[in-house]
Amino acid sequence: MLWGIGTIEGRVKDLYNLIKDPENAILSVLKDKKDVVIGISGFGSAGYPKLIPDVIAELADKGRIAPKITLLTGASAYQVDQVLGERGLIVRRYPYQFSPTMRRLINSGKVEFHDIHLGEWPQYVRSGFLSSVVGSLDLAIVEAVKVDSEGIVPSMSVGTIDAFVSEASKVIIEVNPDIPEELAGIHDIYIPGIPPNREPIPIRNVNDRIGESRLRIRRDKIAAIVESHGHDRGGDVGEPGPVERRIADNLLSFLQNEMEAGRIPREMLPIESGVGVVQDAVMSAIAEAGISGLKAWTEVAQDSFYKMVAEGEMEYISATSLMLSPSGREFFFNSIGEFREVTVLRPQSVTNDWEVIRRLGVIAMNTAVEVDLYGFVNSTHVMGTDIINGIGGSGDFARASYLSIFITPSTRKGGRISCVVPMVSHVDHVDHDVDVVVTEYGVCDLRGKSPRERALEIIENCAHPDYRDGLLSYFEKAVRETGGHMPTLYDLALSWHKTYREKGDMREAIS
Amino acid sequence: MLWGIGTIEGRVKDLYNLIKDPENAILSVLKDKKDVVIGISGFGSAGYPKLIPDVIAELADKGRIAPKITLLTGASAYQVDQVLGERGLIVRRYPYQFSPTMRRLINSGKVEFHDIHLGEWPQYVRSGFLSSVVGSLDLAIVEAVKVDSEGIVPSMSVGTIDAFVSEASKVIIEVNPDIPEELAGIHDIYIPGIPPNREPIPIRNVNDRIGESRLRIRRDKIAAIVESHGHDRGGDVGEPGPVERRIADNLLSFLQNEMEAGRIPREMLPIESGVGVVQDAVMSAIAEAGISGLKAWTEVAQDSFYKMVAEGEMEYISATSLMLSPSGREFFFNSIGEFREVTVLRPQSVTNDWEVIRRLGVIAMNTAVEVDLYGFVNSTHVMGTDIINGIGGSGDFARASYLSIFITPSTRKGGRISCVVPMVSHVDHVDHDVDVVVTEYGVCDLRGKSPRERALEIIENCAHPDYRDGLLSYFEKAVRETGGHMPTLYDLALSWHKTYREKGDMREAIS
Repeated sequence: MLWGIGTIEGRVKDLYNLIKDPENAILSVLKDKKDVVIGISGFGSAGYPKLIPDVIAELADKGRIAPKITLLTGASAYQVDQVLGERGLIVRRYPYQFSPTMRRLINSGKVEFHDIHLGEWPQYVRSGFLSSVVGSLDLAIVEAVKVDSEGIVPSMSVGTIDAFVSEASKVIIEVNPDIPEELAGIHDIYIPGIPPNREPIPIRNVNDRIGESRLRIRRDKIAAIVESHGHDRGGDVGEPGPVERRIADNLLSFLQNEMEAGRIPREMLPIESGVGVVQDAVMSAIAEAGISGLKAWTEVAQDSFYKMVAEGEMEYISATSLMLSPSGREFFFNSIGEFREVTVLRPQSVTNDWEVIRRLGVIAMNTAVEVDLYGFVNSTHVMGTDIINGIGGSGDFARASYLSIFITPSTRKGGRISCVVPMVSHVDHVDHDVDVVVTEYGVCDLRGKSPRERALEIIENCAHPDYRDGLLSYFEKAVRETGGHMPTLYDLALSWHKTYREKGDMREAIS
Repeated sequence: MLWGIGTIEGRVKDLYNLIKDPENAILSVLKDKKDVVIGISGFGSAGYPKLIPDVIAELADKGRIAPKITLLTGASAYQVDQVLGERGLIVRRYPYQFSPTMRRLINSGKVEFHDIHLGEWPQYVRSGFLSSVVGSLDLAIVEAVKVDSEGIVPSMSVGTIDAFVSEASKVIIEVNPDIPEELAGIHDIYIPGIPPNREPIPIRNVNDRIGESRLRIRRDKIAAIVESHGHDRGGDVGEPGPVERRIADNLLSFLQNEMEAGRIPREMLPIESGVGVVQDAVMSAIAEAGISGLKAWTEVAQDSFYKMVAEGEMEYISATSLMLSPSGREFFFNSIGEFREVTVLRPQSVTNDWEVIRRLGVIAMNTAVEVDLYGFVNSTHVMGTDIINGIGGSGDFARASYLSIFITPSTRKGGRISCVVPMVSHVDHVDHDVDVVVTEYGVCDLRGKSPRERALEIIENCAHPDYRDGLLSYFEKAVRETGGHMPTLYDLALSWHKTYREKGDMREAIS
């Protein structure tokens, strides 16, 4: 057990008498409860509670509680999904996940999962849109740097904690003294109202602060404060290989061309970068090309951003989560005073808000699992059936952005899967929300083009050479046989996926 | 020829010397031009230019001009698509259409069409996103109630005229004296900036006026002012039958239940109502149920709205288009002074803006062509291949709304097409953007439910009894054979559409 009383005294101040041991804290809320709805902090595997979920698991192991949990998070909370999921304690899950265990449970039908736009999720919770299915929120568990009667200073993410704290009957706060107190001041808590009481979100620049540095909480809601320890896991996205670097180069050339044509202003627009090695490579390529004044308006700040800040290549970062690797965290904490001045962590109801994304003119870069001839994108489901993580913020950014770019390698699994297919097996982003597709072979700019024009361009510019003839042959046959605005062969549209499932190689479908 | 000089004198004032005859007006801009890009007023078949397109057609018939036209509109402009389309003068078309001729040309691959979210379209034009495909805008043709050096008073719609006038090299203004001058004052022209110079759109209530009553224009852009005559066609949506009335009743019960549960506030939220007889029936049902304080935040104001205003059932209407039938127009014009006080016509960049839709908490009601087991919606393509009209504003409203409702009869074509299918043959609205589906059989509330739960509910509540067993059998087989978060049978997913195409009856697929 990692908890103790005393270490966090200076971080709790006038709420000192609310400190409890974690078992009592949990039992005070969950004892004899069967169906429970729990909302936890955590976004991009950053800022999740490190202690209480483990103790819930222990108490369940001992037979002292037997909850059926509906688990709500900001986005992913890897460790919590693992520890509670492995024990079969979770029956429902919203709005996103990123854990092998949870993925298996969802895909086998054992956990009911509803994948929801992350920008819409906090309002979804606060408007009671889940209430007819799961009832009301019993408990919120929030990791904090400190807390007192002025409010909670969140830890490495904000996510949806504002909505969970507002809606939950009780709140347990984990104060984690391993996180430097100097993080305080990085957060900007502004809570958009619920219609008809919603005002314009007054952000005009990436670095505007519009809220408070703490999340207010009613003292009578706090069931307990506990001391927790440890750091977030994850955050290591790896090094880019040659394919990632070619994708980055292609994307960079495209952006430079857009700037020359005046379609992206000289001062550059803020960038949203999904999490991953390709995005890292892209950000590096942009910085190395000498495009100055870079700002990130995104969900998750990664290691690479702070390298760019240190090298003068990145001006400002607005995110809802600081997802850092162990070395990235050390780098960040070592200069926390400096980095805090160029970072703001906001609720995801602000970072992912369509109003603000649209106003700022964000350039959105997200990853596709597969794209099709007409520009539809699957970003969540392998072979159309099995969910990987969830739509996350990609739908918020793709639709509301100034320019929506999807990147993908042309193939996966050593060439056995083509990422350009006749028809995507699952649609997350309709063609209306996809401006540009980039692979290591090149760029397809869909803007202003008819579906038939896009098909020819995406085959020529983006598909892997092994699959180009197959795609062209499908397309030409579809034009002949069904015609129409989007020619489609009902028998063959999903045949590549069927072949992969049966034979393990899409190339078998076109031989 | 309908033009003449003199009748419109009082409506042109200090620009009197810019009046030309239409042939000279056109020749001054288009003579010897081959590829031309023309943007015209018109939205929902309201406010399109009545004269110049006809004269372009005449001049082409006489061989005096031979343009290949890229035609841009706000949304539909039925008559113009017909007259220019029939002569093969249109080679490209954006961003929406609603005409049998244009539909045929697009589906046969003779006109390149790019279907674009109507809320995004004005910025698309102003940011130059079409420029690499079609070049710049040569001509804007705008119908007006009047014009002088203070600016243009638009006619029955605003649409995208602000962007066309701003971007076009030359503008021809059709002043139509058949429209009462008393329409002036109904318009509210506010033009959202382009990032990074975009400010919050300061609308907090449906009836807020934030702009000017005229569209400013530089005098040197005006190639000509011409006199035109005649009224918009269309606007007669017909009377609801028993199926439409049952859909309306089901939707009304759902809304009342949401109000009782507190998920819709007592004062009611603004309603977006797509155009059509079902929507008319729904609005009537809401009004008859005594839900007071109704306001419409929508694209197109229809006949029925003004009946509701007259009966005290509708408080205010914000739209970009007044699409009225001949009798509806007479009714409106007869009380124009009164109706103008409860109506505002805005650019579509405001009516369809995601920021405002989200802030106001609009309840969106749109029509589906078909829905599938997991809640995906096709609203544009018959059997996945042939476009009907376009996505229009449905994507703007479905994503940004407080509550996104799709309505459809359970079957079409006398039962030969099921509107609930295993997999939609084309996706316009992903499951993340669909909260509720309503047919004449009932309501499926997708919120908070996993895909497998939705499937069972939509079969039981929404599908036609003739198709329920077939849907259930597909779903159960998919769960057994592929499993996953969204079980999908690659061979059978689109087999109902294939069967319909081959045999004319989807029931043949499940016998």
